[in-house]
Amino acid sequence: MANIAFIGLGNMGGPMAINLAKAGHQVCVFDLSADAVAHVVAAGASTKASAIACVQGAQFVISMLPAGKHVDAVYLAENTGLINHIEAGCLVIDSSTIDAATSCKVAKALATKDINFVDAPVSGGVGGAVAGTLSFMVGGSTEEFAQAEPILMAMGKNIFHAGVHGAGQIAKVCNNMLLSVLMVGTSEALQLGLANGLDPKVLSNIMSKSSGSNWTLDGYNPCPGVMDNVPASNDYQGGFMVDLMAKDLGLAMETSLASQSSTPMGALARSLYAMHAASGNGSKDFSSIFKLFNKK
Amino acid sequence: MANIAFIGLGNMGGPMAINLAKAGHQVCVFDLSADAVAHVVAAGASTKASAIACVQGAQFVISMLPAGKHVDAVYLAENTGLINHIEAGCLVIDSSTIDAATSCKVAKALATKDINFVDAPVSGGVGGAVAGTLSFMVGGSTEEFAQAEPILMAMGKNIFHAGVHGAGQIAKVCNNMLLSVLMVGTSEALQLGLANGLDPKVLSNIMSKSSGSNWTLDGYNPCPGVMDNVPASNDYQGGFMVDLMAKDLGLAMETSLASQSSTPMGALARSLYAMHAASGNGSKDFSSIFKLFNKK
Amino acid sequence: MANIAFIGLGNMGGPMAINLAKAGHQVCVFDLSADAVAHVVAAGASTKASAIACVQGAQFVISMLPAGKHVDAVYLAENTGLINHIEAGCLVIDSSTIDAATSCKVAKALATKDINFVDAPVSGGVGGAVAGTLSFMVGGSTEEFAQAEPILMAMGKNIFHAGVHGAGQIAKVCNNMLLSVLMVGTSEALQLGLANGLDPKVLSNIMSKSSGSNWTLDGYNPCPGVMDNVPASNDYQGGFMVDLMAKDLGLAMETSLASQSSTPMGALARSLYAMHAASGNGSKDFSSIFKLFNKK
Amino acid sequence: MANIAFIGLGNMGGPMAINLAKAGHQVCVFDLSADAVAHVVAAGASTKASAIACVQGAQFVISMLPAGKHVDAVYLAENTGLINHIEAGCLVIDSSTIDAATSCKVAKALATKDINFVDAPVSGGVGGAVAGTLSFMVGGSTEEFAQAEPILMAMGKNIFHAGVHGAGQIAKVCNNMLLSVLMVGTSEALQLGLANGLDPKVLSNIMSKSSGSNWTLDGYNPCPGVMDNVPASNDYQGGFMVDLMAKDLGLAMETSLASQSSTPMGALARSLYAMHAASGNGSKDFSSIFKLFNKK
Repeated sequence: MANIAFIGLGNMGGPMAINLAKAGHQVCVFDLSADAVAHVVAAGASTKASAIACVQGAQFVISMLPAGKHVDAVYLAENTGLINHIEAGCLVIDSSTIDAATSCKVAKALATKDINFVDAPVSGGVGGAVAGTLSFMVGGSTEEFAQAEPILMAMGKNIFHAGVHGAGQIAKVCNNMLLSVLMVGTSEALQLGLANGLDPKVLSNIMSKSSGSNWTLDGYNPCPGVMDNVPASNDYQGGFMVDLMAKDLGLAMETSLASQSSTPMGALARSLYAMHAASGNGSKDFSSIFKLFNKK
Repeated sequence: MANIAFIGLGNMGGPMAINLAKAGHQVCVFDLSADAVAHVVAAGASTKASAIACVQGAQFVISMLPAGKHVDAVYLAENTGLINHIEAGCLVIDSSTIDAATSCKVAKALATKDINFVDAPVSGGVGGAVAGTLSFMVGGSTEEFAQAEPILMAMGKNIFHAGVHGAGQIAKVCNNMLLSVLMVGTSEALQLGLANGLDPKVLSNIMSKSSGSNWTLDGYNPCPGVMDNVPASNDYQGGFMVDLMAKDLGLAMETSLASQSSTPMGALARSLYAMHAASGNGSKDFSSIFKLFNKK
Repeated sequence: MANIAFIGLGNMGGPMAINLAKAGHQVCVFDLSADAVAHVVAAGASTKASAIACVQGAQFVISMLPAGKHVDAVYLAENTGLINHIEAGCLVIDSSTIDAATSCKVAKALATKDINFVDAPVSGGVGGAVAGTLSFMVGGSTEEFAQAEPILMAMGKNIFHAGVHGAGQIAKVCNNMLLSVLMVGTSEALQLGLANGLDPKVLSNIMSKSSGSNWTLDGYNPCPGVMDNVPASNDYQGGFMVDLMAKDLGLAMETSLASQSSTPMGALARSLYAMHAASGNGSKDFSSIFKLFNKK
Repeated sequence: MANIAFIGLGNMGGPMAINLAKAGHQVCVFDLSADAVAHVVAAGASTKASAIACVQGAQFVISMLPAGKHVDAVYLAENTGLINHIEAGCLVIDSSTIDAATSCKVAKALATKDINFVDAPVSGGVGGAVAGTLSFMVGGSTEEFAQAEPILMAMGKNIFHAGVHGAGQIAKVCNNMLLSVLMVGTSEALQLGLANGLDPKVLSNIMSKSSGSNWTLDGYNPCPGVMDNVPASNDYQGGFMVDLMAKDLGLAMETSLASQSSTPMGALARSLYAMHAASGNGSKDFSSIFKLFNKK
């Protein structure tokens, strides 16, 4: 069992830390929110007065933070950066979804102190975090991946080695850009059927068993009433928020710009999600994009 | 066993007719191409001098024709239309992929002579036609569907009842519009990963097991070398031609226009496939759209 | 002065007929609405009991009808078509905005009776129709154009010879497709400026005097408050209705499909206008698409 | 006459500096390329051994650099930044096209030393730089704008005050995003006309005098042969390079992402230009996007 510091106990980080503790690891957690800390401590973790105190002596440091600037600051800030307090040989696992450039920058800086690093963003949402069934997309060397894998297994089900540092982030934005296209394309197709008299359950069944089959259509249908237990049948509550999809599409577009790639579908999805968020749907599930194609 | 007339023996119609004959039906075939007729007759069908001669006394008439105008002409042309020669009680199964309006017009006209009708376009390509594993999307009444089903089973695996007359065509264009979006979106995502250093096999595996999973990524990967036995690994030969996808997207757009639906992704896919066809790729497999996003 | 029959007295046709009468022509008008007829007769035209009666002895027949099927029926319907009543040598001027294929079909049929034809759709809206400042885009032979021009001058200011039969319609859909792109592009650019703190008047002035200059930005600004006397500053009342732009974009897309052209921007504009119409803005001016990009 | 330091003598900066010298100003220039310096010195400027030496005692410092990172480094680099050498009261005019955030950062830093600043990106291309007819879009206070205007008049014709610091950059990206949409939309419309038999000169003339009128159609026509003296009639040589338009669209997209704006047309134009550049057209004029819509 390992000695683990966990920084960032939000909707995702909290249950992830709890699963580590449940698996028998020694988990010392830190967050600016005392409530968030208390909740995880109640489930078996310990805490200390600062992130710096937490990482001292840890074999693993895991972080789950909102954006690249937070990751940069937590590890590399001039005086307060954890880089000066993490021990050589320790593995830093950053599970935040951020730009690959920041992941690489942090990896490179930590390497100068012989600290290992993987970027390991997740998919699977809050449900997956609680159930311990997340997917991890990991960027780092073969050795770093091998070091990370047993720890990640306590929080997830599929642990993918995407490639070198930053590759985990790239895999995540590619997947989520594709996911957004699947959702918009599925919504358009279902609405086109509806507008021409088809029953959406019948059409969904046909396409799911044909070449239109995809993750959103088959198990996360955006048309209300087609499936039980999906956000569409619960007024688009829960699930994966439009604002978070918009954030991930922002990262995908930055990646596309930086590599001068052509991503017309991804770019269209980005603008449609921005439009949808701007008209007040930011905290709805991302399948609510279906409504954008409603006929009055 | 039934007495079946089969009109239209192209790349799809030929093997479909052969499968009916192999199943033990009496199949009388007609096509303007003597070679096409000879090929099917050699496999067990019979032929007659005209389509009119074929349909006389038939319990089922099946047609597989290129476009709505051909279907309209074959059944309804003023003097030569089969409507005047098909017997009451017979079921016409039109498996052509055409506009729903023509399907409905033909159904309505045939009904005045007590001839039943279903539109039953297929998916599955030439491979599925030969193997007898096509999917049929059927539009017609419950009685007509029941009448059609046992015959269709000799040619396909999945027989879907999409709804009333025309619904088969609508389901087909919805599915194929969605399929085109899946293919373009998957191509963009894989190219974005490639441009940022990821191995396309690794990325495909990750996304297939994550929320990016879809029919094109999982079994028909557009990136050369990721999968064996797909057109992408055979210089985009075989499979489903760009020109045919462009035709289906044309039908999808006409359906979208007629119902004043908003289908931005489908419309973008249509223009990208038109662009791709115009630059000389019309007879390549539709997964070759991947090349549109190549970096030099 | 000429002897003119005028069929179709809607928002456009009515003032056009009045301008012909004011110019001194003998104008005999017909419409299914008695009110519409009475209004034009009060301004100096005459009427008869039927369209057939109106066209007998006329040197020119002008029609202004909603769609291709109406034009087809008015001229070519089996028994009631005007083709059987218009005199040889007469020029038919169809100013309806319809598909080019129908224009060509009518032209060809009329030619068998030695009746001349031009398609002559207009731009300039109701305001231009009343003021007699419409633009006409004319399709027909050089002789037909020469025959049409003096009559059109009584209703418009710019009379363009676009090419052979149907070319007037093609020019119209090309222009209006481009117009829709200008309006959406201008709306996006102004909203992007607004969201980043710029004054829309200042930004409009800069772009109008730079390479962003275009008809919509310079004289029909979609941002409320930038210009007086445009629909945007009058709650998007008046002007060119979203539903009419959607109709014209439908014709543009049919033209694009028929010629297998790639028109991604036009197709995107079509879907955005369909989306905008579906959310209840069909009778607003087409510059109201600006609102689609509003930040909450 | 003013004492001016000019940093960055590329295709644009060189002729701009020469125009300042010709207008009678004392211009001290610096560039890493000795050839570039020699060329401008031959036209009347002076030079010194370093940028730092140039700015000492200058009343104005003008920079024309490739990207935000260069501007940031030139002014703010820890030891070598010009901020430590420019005199209080001096006005820095940065004419580089960069992100607004960097402009604001530099402005704020310089203000701590009582150095004034405007961002003043240009439009008009190399031709405008040579002829002294550039447009400047200026971001800064009213006082800073007043200080800048007389100097800018020696290099340009239209000097626009866009707003506060950064507003010049925002105006530039809004304008150029719109410009790209005009160019793509015009190309599509002309190609649609061509594919349907229209003469592009005739169609261009009609649309230019109608509501399709825009800067690209009217004076920079992308169809070869329609206009003399434009890149389209010279194999798309000269003019405004595809790679530069792609760079500006990258800045526009970053601006759109940062403000969570929806810019579907701009985003589509960005992907089409990236696609066009990737297939080997990066150094062609941006009107060559017309070729993307060619029918074989």
